[in-house]
Amino acid sequence: MVVGEISQERDLVIIGGGPGGYNAAIRAAQLGLEVTLIETEDMGGVCLNKGCIPSKVWTHAAKKNAELVHLKELGIHTGNTSFDIKKLMAYKTKVTDQLRSGVEALCKANKIELIEGKASFLTEDRIGVENGHQFDVYVFKQAIIATGSTTKYPAELSGNSSRIFLSYEIFELPHLPEHLIIYGSDYISLEIASSYASFGSKVTILMREDEDFLFDKSINKELKRLLKRKKIQVKKQVVIQAVEETEKDIRITFADDKQTKQTVEGTHLVAIGEKKPNVNELGIGRLGMKQTDKGSIVINHRMQTSLPSIYAIGDVTEGPLLAVKAIKQGKAAVESIAGGNPEVDLTFLPVVAHTIPPIASVGLTEKEVHDHGLVARISQFPIGSNGYAMISNQRDGFIKVITDTRNDLILGVHMIGEGAVELSAVFVQLLEMAGKEEDVIFPNYAHPSMNEGLMEAVESLIGHAIHITPQKQ
Amino acid sequence: MVVGEISQERDLVIIGGGPGGYNAAIRAAQLGLEVTLIETEDMGGVCLNKGCIPSKVWTHAAKKNAELVHLKELGIHTGNTSFDIKKLMAYKTKVTDQLRSGVEALCKANKIELIEGKASFLTEDRIGVENGHQFDVYVFKQAIIATGSTTKYPAELSGNSSRIFLSYEIFELPHLPEHLIIYGSDYISLEIASSYASFGSKVTILMREDEDFLFDKSINKELKRLLKRKKIQVKKQVVIQAVEETEKDIRITFADDKQTKQTVEGTHLVAIGEKKPNVNELGIGRLGMKQTDKGSIVINHRMQTSLPSIYAIGDVTEGPLLAVKAIKQGKAAVESIAGGNPEVDLTFLPVVAHTIPPIASVGLTEKEVHDHGLVARISQFPIGSNGYAMISNQRDGFIKVITDTRNDLILGVHMIGEGAVELSAVFVQLLEMAGKEEDVIFPNYAHPSMNEGLMEAVESLIGHAIHITPQKQ
Repeated sequence: MVVGEISQERDLVIIGGGPGGYNAAIRAAQLGLEVTLIETEDMGGVCLNKGCIPSKVWTHAAKKNAELVHLKELGIHTGNTSFDIKKLMAYKTKVTDQLRSGVEALCKANKIELIEGKASFLTEDRIGVENGHQFDVYVFKQAIIATGSTTKYPAELSGNSSRIFLSYEIFELPHLPEHLIIYGSDYISLEIASSYASFGSKVTILMREDEDFLFDKSINKELKRLLKRKKIQVKKQVVIQAVEETEKDIRITFADDKQTKQTVEGTHLVAIGEKKPNVNELGIGRLGMKQTDKGSIVINHRMQTSLPSIYAIGDVTEGPLLAVKAIKQGKAAVESIAGGNPEVDLTFLPVVAHTIPPIASVGLTEKEVHDHGLVARISQFPIGSNGYAMISNQRDGFIKVITDTRNDLILGVHMIGEGAVELSAVFVQLLEMAGKEEDVIFPNYAHPSMNEGLMEAVESLIGHAIHITPQKQ
Repeated sequence: MVVGEISQERDLVIIGGGPGGYNAAIRAAQLGLEVTLIETEDMGGVCLNKGCIPSKVWTHAAKKNAELVHLKELGIHTGNTSFDIKKLMAYKTKVTDQLRSGVEALCKANKIELIEGKASFLTEDRIGVENGHQFDVYVFKQAIIATGSTTKYPAELSGNSSRIFLSYEIFELPHLPEHLIIYGSDYISLEIASSYASFGSKVTILMREDEDFLFDKSINKELKRLLKRKKIQVKKQVVIQAVEETEKDIRITFADDKQTKQTVEGTHLVAIGEKKPNVNELGIGRLGMKQTDKGSIVINHRMQTSLPSIYAIGDVTEGPLLAVKAIKQGKAAVESIAGGNPEVDLTFLPVVAHTIPPIASVGLTEKEVHDHGLVARISQFPIGSNGYAMISNQRDGFIKVITDTRNDLILGVHMIGEGAVELSAVFVQLLEMAGKEEDVIFPNYAHPSMNEGLMEAVESLIGHAIHITPQKQ
């Protein structure tokens, strides 16, 4: 290792080229700052290369595969259909390659200096970057840590088997698993379950002790009903006791919700692991940077760490480990550095799952409303009562709206049904802008469209949905 | 004909069971009114049985058919595919049957009296209903005219040919036209063009003199580019001079935009006709009800005609001939009758076309902004720069946002691109709630999603879109 003799001067150094890091870098360039972005692996980070994007390629293909039956009734005849996961893997690589080169091109066009290497802080204003035998030292005015997180195997499992995968790694399996066991219940678990079931795998979900799906209770209930219909088994309150691998499969022994000993045999297991912040090799310990017990970097409302010249954003900080948070914080951090006074408010963060049908949830759940002691009006509009849903024959699910009886304010919107993810922008807008029942009822919506379903969900709060029978409102 | 000897008493009589009429009837029942609904043909009217719904079955199937190519790259092999329009026709009938029985069941559940027959007013508070040999007279407190409109052949054409169709009638043709000529440029024309082209027909659009497509000029331009790519010919400034039918096709002779004589030969012609209000057989002339020169019934802001006991809604009144307007006015009319003070505001009516990709437009166009003398910021975010669009490989189009430089108020949002129709609810909300640039930039959107495209379109107004190169903002 050759230690650079002279330290080079930089204005803003960003460590990590994931969504948080590259959004911060480009916004910084837009604000006139000189930016250096350090990434040790692929630009775009886990989200673009392994997580968010590949998983949405999977869920997108799964949706299209599930629609094949519907094509027949539309008069679109296909021959025998088959699914080739290797082609999907190639398509995924094409998409991620394009997105990654897009990000690289944007960085170049924004005159962002890209440095490949592993960064660690030497002092509050000096950082070392190691790349093979090269070691360069940079003096910076400000730095932003955007190194993200790494998923770890649950303690009760390990990856010492070609049949066990950790979260998104399952997308690297070059054939369809005959029977995929999923150990987890978050949106990643659900997207994997929904995708592989659509492709033709048998799927079993093992839900940990005291876990439920992460949405409003009525959405969780409808989700379970739909999973059951797709023959996806859900085992609750699972405490794994043993994992054995035979030549042909993998056997999990566990206690279930009745504390009975059970076994499930599958060909493959995917374990949804916990994400841990990537902070250990940054040298922040020796600088005395404040961290939580779990290692997350503590930041203030300006994304500043306890060392004023160093900021941190995304998965290395506390809060939800989602790209949308990292992006928001990344932009806010540089706006703050550039002298602005940005605000990051994650109150109305949409929680989504690209299942079939998809789920989107914004604002308070029914339980949260009760926990807050609020008196609420609650309605559910069945997707099947919407005209456009009948046209597209995607009738599962409902839109649930919760409002405050005192002032008609919308407190939460929860949807399971076709189009939920894109419609979530409406839910977000309504909550951010303190929308009331009247704000949904008053406007005009395209007819026929699922938008009318949202309107009717709100009309139903006062028994005024046209397409629900009086008894059911 | 037997004239009923006693006139029967009714509270509220609604004439016409289309979207306007049945929405009014159900809302009236919800408000505690006794309702009688008179319909001479099918419940649901033209919209449900012939227009909005069947056309969306067509555009939905067309979209799915166009996606077949994409399935291959996702690893979904379909073998040889073919399209059978008779099966689509059967599916359409199934959907409209279901929707119609749904409406009938809702009317029953809401205790709405349904009367089959042709209604005409005798006086300001008496109406006669003719059904075969039966003629009944009803005395009413209030009546609502919701008889809709009928499409007429353009004067220069007539339907005296099995090869010429009027608007939605084309959906009755039980085979694929080899070469379909469409005479018109509205959203119906575009939806028919887009559908049949996707199914495999050759399509030519003849645009009347001084007509253009009905959206913002940049949307129209992009639309033309996409039509051209699909080999859909568009002839502008067409003045039809002759229509001749041979054994195998139909030949249209016309002057074009260069005033050159041209001919186009197709196997079938669909003429998009003008809609005329269905008022002639209502007997309103003899009551002295105020009508416009074109026959539309004049109403006040309470949907009341010049005869205070009689209201009118939807296509029989002035304004856009759209179901959404009829529905809104229908609800407002009965709310008004029930003593409420409803408001119908069509300022932010979404204008949509279910083309491939779809189009949705809300608020002021660029031209209207200039005509109003407003100084505006304008941006266009290319759909192809959005991550989700790359995943789904639906990259055509853009989102255009127009804001007022004085106060950052959003004046118009215009989108051509996948998901436009459902996203239009966001555009509507933003305009209705007087949203500003900051209101779109501040919230959190699901990642990846097309919602982020809208956010970036707004960010681009001030050069802050992350995924557009600096030169292009």
